[in-house]
Amino acid sequence: MRDAYHEQLESVGHTLVEMAELVGQALSRATRALLEADLPTAEAVISADDAVDALHRELDVRTLDLMARQQPVASDLRILVTSLRMSADLERMGDLARHIAKVSRMRYPQCAIPEELRETIAQMGEIGAELARKVGRILEDKDVDAARTLEAQDDAVDRLHRAVFTELLSPENPYAIETAIDVTLLSRYYERFADHAVSVAHRLVFLVTGEQDGQR
Amino acid sequence: MRDAYHEQLESVGHTLVEMAELVGQALSRATRALLEADLPTAEAVISADDAVDALHRELDVRTLDLMARQQPVASDLRILVTSLRMSADLERMGDLARHIAKVSRMRYPQCAIPEELRETIAQMGEIGAELARKVGRILEDKDVDAARTLEAQDDAVDRLHRAVFTELLSPENPYAIETAIDVTLLSRYYERFADHAVSVAHRLVFLVTGEQDGQR
Repeated sequence: MRDAYHEQLESVGHTLVEMAELVGQALSRATRALLEADLPTAEAVISADDAVDALHRELDVRTLDLMARQQPVASDLRILVTSLRMSADLERMGDLARHIAKVSRMRYPQCAIPEELRETIAQMGEIGAELARKVGRILEDKDVDAARTLEAQDDAVDRLHRAVFTELLSPENPYAIETAIDVTLLSRYYERFADHAVSVAHRLVFLVTGEQDGQR
Repeated sequence: MRDAYHEQLESVGHTLVEMAELVGQALSRATRALLEADLPTAEAVISADDAVDALHRELDVRTLDLMARQQPVASDLRILVTSLRMSADLERMGDLARHIAKVSRMRYPQCAIPEELRETIAQMGEIGAELARKVGRILEDKDVDAARTLEAQDDAVDRLHRAVFTELLSPENPYAIETAIDVTLLSRYYERFADHAVSVAHRLVFLVTGEQDGQR
């Protein structure tokens, strides 16, 4: 009985790793769809988010069931509650990748990103997807040190987010209002994606060390 | 022992009601600060969010403690897990009100909202604050019917959010890029605030009826 329980506890962790992989792929593909005005890829990202939502719901049910039936000890309870929160972060990251794909679809056959901002958006996409991949590995290895280094990459996304606004406001390139709206929202989605990735990493640190997770 | 436990369970609910009231006030004041370029009010909203964060952290500790020490039955466990999620929604609503106040502070002594958009933003602020107040009452009374009617008001915020973009894009009023960026982000903050309010209401419906909460 106890063994089946620990297997179930472990499988919750596996689902989180799977979710992290899926949302990392989703962000990569959403960014490609955005930069290349690639409608089939945008559509694929939008549909694929259902799988992340399903994993999230299913993990919820399993976790609540484990809590109710097994009366876990305090440390396992902390794992289960933290897993629910990580799952919520990852599910939200999937939503944000889907939002990005939807902007790409809305502007098709045009590209929502002007030439001067392509590189910045590409970098935000790359770092975001890399953060998600790292989160997957961090969860798999319970790697507190790696989790702590994620913060620096989140700072890079914040810098890019500010660089987007600086470019939008540059007097040399007068941008259309529609472009400003699209790019502002997109940049915000990337920033929030990275925030949630760091939040998952913080929760892992909290789980392993018992340190406060900063309530992100 | 059992009575102290139920008192503690009830006090978790009271904290959620208090949080809903605080974030509703925060949004009202942030909107006033924004529309009147009122720096002291903006500063007050920014500082006051610490109290919401503190309630959130403290509710977390109490809830986890109750779970670990009392081995709650399945129905109480559902209450506690849902309370943690509601608290996270409410904490986020506080953050969003603070974000709005920060835009107001950043643009001071200017007003971030152009004349033509004042009314729309004022309405978003009013409906958002009203949603938070209703959420407080819904939590207090465990009022499922009222919780279900919240959805309609969220739709109103979504409509206003789209109206903001339509106005920003209107050819008669050429807006500055800075205005477009500010207003796009602000409108998004109001929209997310309303989303989280509806999410809390959904969770209450789930809690009382056992219906799926739609994983918002």
